[in-house]
Amino acid sequence: MEIERKFLLSEIPPTMRFARRVPIRQGYLALDGDTEVRLRITAKGAVLTIKSGRGGVRVEEEIALQSRQAEALWELTEGRRVQKTRRTVRLAGPATGPELHVEVDEYSGGLDGLVVAEVEFPDEASARGFEPPAWFGRELTDDWRYANRSLASDGMPAE
Amino acid sequence: MEIERKFLLSEIPPTMRFARRVPIRQGYLALDGDTEVRLRITAKGAVLTIKSGRGGVRVEEEIALQSRQAEALWELTEGRRVQKTRRTVRLAGPATGPELHVEVDEYSGGLDGLVVAEVEFPDEASARGFEPPAWFGRELTDDWRYANRSLASDGMPAE
Repeated sequence: MEIERKFLLSEIPPTMRFARRVPIRQGYLALDGDTEVRLRITAKGAVLTIKSGRGGVRVEEEIALQSRQAEALWELTEGRRVQKTRRTVRLAGPATGPELHVEVDEYSGGLDGLVVAEVEFPDEASARGFEPPAWFGRELTDDWRYANRSLASDGMPAE
Repeated sequence: MEIERKFLLSEIPPTMRFARRVPIRQGYLALDGDTEVRLRITAKGAVLTIKSGRGGVRVEEEIALQSRQAEALWELTEGRRVQKTRRTVRLAGPATGPELHVEVDEYSGGLDGLVVAEVEFPDEASARGFEPPAWFGRELTDDWRYANRSLASDGMPAE
């Protein structure tokens, strides 16, 4: 399972302006209790992810899709989509800790202006011990309104 | 899109007793409005079907899954499963019409005793013109309670 922490950014940090950008289209085919069925389409291909987030059974499975099939299924995500550009950078941290990467997602469309950083950790201990750099804003990890499925369904959270 | 009519049977017809049987496990990963995400596992393999049944956009896509992935996802279908044995026969009909096949599904588990026949048609006209043979019982085509997703979630309909 992924262990992640998520933070609000006020903008794309200047050092990342020219980092490689990956445009991502992501939509939800079905949201049913704790289970989500997500379609993500990038230039590298399309992936269907079925994920059950909470509760006793935790499952996350990814299935590669052919582009024709992905586009047919994309139709079913109408009204529950997000569009964003991802930049990934290595995080300069203490020399002793594990190497960490930050995914910075800049949303567009109805979520224009929203920028979020996500850090993935190899284990719980490094997630707990993580000291967010100064350019990170408020933590969003447990803020359900900023989950992609919420952003896709409900749009920008009111502050 | 499939054009099908569905009928209740009182039993497996004697002529089909020895027809080849295909055991089918089928469960629902997500049911969200008109969209269903179904997992079907047979000896021939596992297939994920994403289907949006009604409304303007009609989509049905099938995705073959590896067995490890199918079994992981199967965990998420708990409480929404049906188990049945399928026999397929050609239907002797008027010499002029299209050749038709009947799939006879004998349910087991909590739906023990339920036997349903499904006929698939190449077009609307042959579906409308179809004369059910004498061994077919009540038509279930528009009876939502007998849809597999309802049987899986709610069990045997009360008569």
